[in-house]
Amino acid sequence: MDEAVGYLGPPGTFGEQAAVLLQKQLCPQAELRPFDSHVEIVRAVDAGEVAYGVVAVENALGGAVPDTLDAILAAPEASLCGELTLPVEHHLIAAAGSDVESIDIVMSHPQALAQCRGYLELHLPNAQLEAALSTAAAVEQAVRSPGSAGIGTRRAAEVYGGAILAQSIQDEDQNETRFVVLARHDTARTGDDKTSIAFAVDHDQPGTLIAALSELSSRSLNMTHIQLRPSRRGLGIYVFLIDFQGHRTDTAVADALAALEAQAGFFRVLGSYPRFRSA
Amino acid sequence: MDEAVGYLGPPGTFGEQAAVLLQKQLCPQAELRPFDSHVEIVRAVDAGEVAYGVVAVENALGGAVPDTLDAILAAPEASLCGELTLPVEHHLIAAAGSDVESIDIVMSHPQALAQCRGYLELHLPNAQLEAALSTAAAVEQAVRSPGSAGIGTRRAAEVYGGAILAQSIQDEDQNETRFVVLARHDTARTGDDKTSIAFAVDHDQPGTLIAALSELSSRSLNMTHIQLRPSRRGLGIYVFLIDFQGHRTDTAVADALAALEAQAGFFRVLGSYPRFRSA
Repeated sequence: MDEAVGYLGPPGTFGEQAAVLLQKQLCPQAELRPFDSHVEIVRAVDAGEVAYGVVAVENALGGAVPDTLDAILAAPEASLCGELTLPVEHHLIAAAGSDVESIDIVMSHPQALAQCRGYLELHLPNAQLEAALSTAAAVEQAVRSPGSAGIGTRRAAEVYGGAILAQSIQDEDQNETRFVVLARHDTARTGDDKTSIAFAVDHDQPGTLIAALSELSSRSLNMTHIQLRPSRRGLGIYVFLIDFQGHRTDTAVADALAALEAQAGFFRVLGSYPRFRSA
Repeated sequence: MDEAVGYLGPPGTFGEQAAVLLQKQLCPQAELRPFDSHVEIVRAVDAGEVAYGVVAVENALGGAVPDTLDAILAAPEASLCGELTLPVEHHLIAAAGSDVESIDIVMSHPQALAQCRGYLELHLPNAQLEAALSTAAAVEQAVRSPGSAGIGTRRAAEVYGGAILAQSIQDEDQNETRFVVLARHDTARTGDDKTSIAFAVDHDQPGTLIAALSELSSRSLNMTHIQLRPSRRGLGIYVFLIDFQGHRTDTAVADALAALEAQAGFFRVLGSYPRFRSA
């Protein structure tokens, strides 16, 4: 297996920013390897082609998130071994020496453009908006195109040699993206851990969900996240993804997992890993 | 108030396809009016600038869905008065007389490109992928550009005079988009109705969610959908959005709503409306 960390490319995306931070912690000697999609990252981890994969699971750009979760559910060898939360900050980036007044075209991923609508209406009401496949691709192209600016990350400005004309131009200040780290193993107990599980529940039966949640609450295991995914059978039948405090080797957690598994038609422990704390 | 139906433009998007169907049912005399974002549609309904708004709430392209839900929560006058589910079908569309072999460039919203990755790798492995702000914008441009194809809806092919070179090229067959109709009122009881509610819950307390779900299950009110949104305070504190069978004027529903309201810090009935049945 290569000592590589897979991330959603090209260089300069939020995904690379997360991968750079995680690589420092987990495997400073590993190379970073860009992939074209979250799904391909998950499959590469599952197949042992990369040691780690960093994927967005919550509130990222461009609809990657449902695809990511579905891919993880379909990858039996991939486990969650870490997590990281980054604030979503969009910057207006152009060739060095540009200023906002000279910008006629603003390019980015359609969702980043949408997230900066307020700024653009106020400061660049006449600029033409152009779509790009990623924020990084937008910055790369804008830096080479006089009169154009891209909306992207600070890292993209560094990678592609652009200047930040305006910082943090997103309309919503509290936006964050949560990334998880995948590997073919999870992480040993540290004493401040989380466990992620997935199980299927019939949507017509709130009682089923109540019974499942009771296995956690009766053992004082606090949920930190809960998410529903329509199963691939169509809308209406759901897979729950729940994160809660504790490591799967803790007695209370192990008991809850056994009880949940006995109830659910589909049940999987996705992994236990250290809880993220911002620096 | 204008008798207009707002939808996510430009003409030819999934949103317009949904709006055309709903206009026939609700208000055949109304005009269709394109908006630039779901958020603007919600605000226009809230302000009484359009009679109806059609917005995607589940599994649509491009991250519109969380924005839509947040906008509905922030719009006190907007109620849900209807719903509609459409299958997600992507078609490869180009100028009449083109064939797949002549296509060098494929353009669409990045998420539509991602959803057709399997087809593109198999049939157009050398084509250059270009991002567009919407599937409709992609088709409009592709039809005018020899050697280019857009990925979009059947309606976009009609609107922009394109030919469908390949039908239903999405990788996932079971994908659907659910739309809701907003107005400044909901809909009277028909006997086959749904009610949508929103309430805030502390994520650290599975017990709170259990208590809320129990108000539904104890009255045999079946959930048809449950969704969580991080509140605007950041990740971690969530707003639940739950749809269940019944009309808010039914006795059991009215009792459950009163009990839920008494428990929740934030609680809102988003509306009752006839359940969608495909034709």
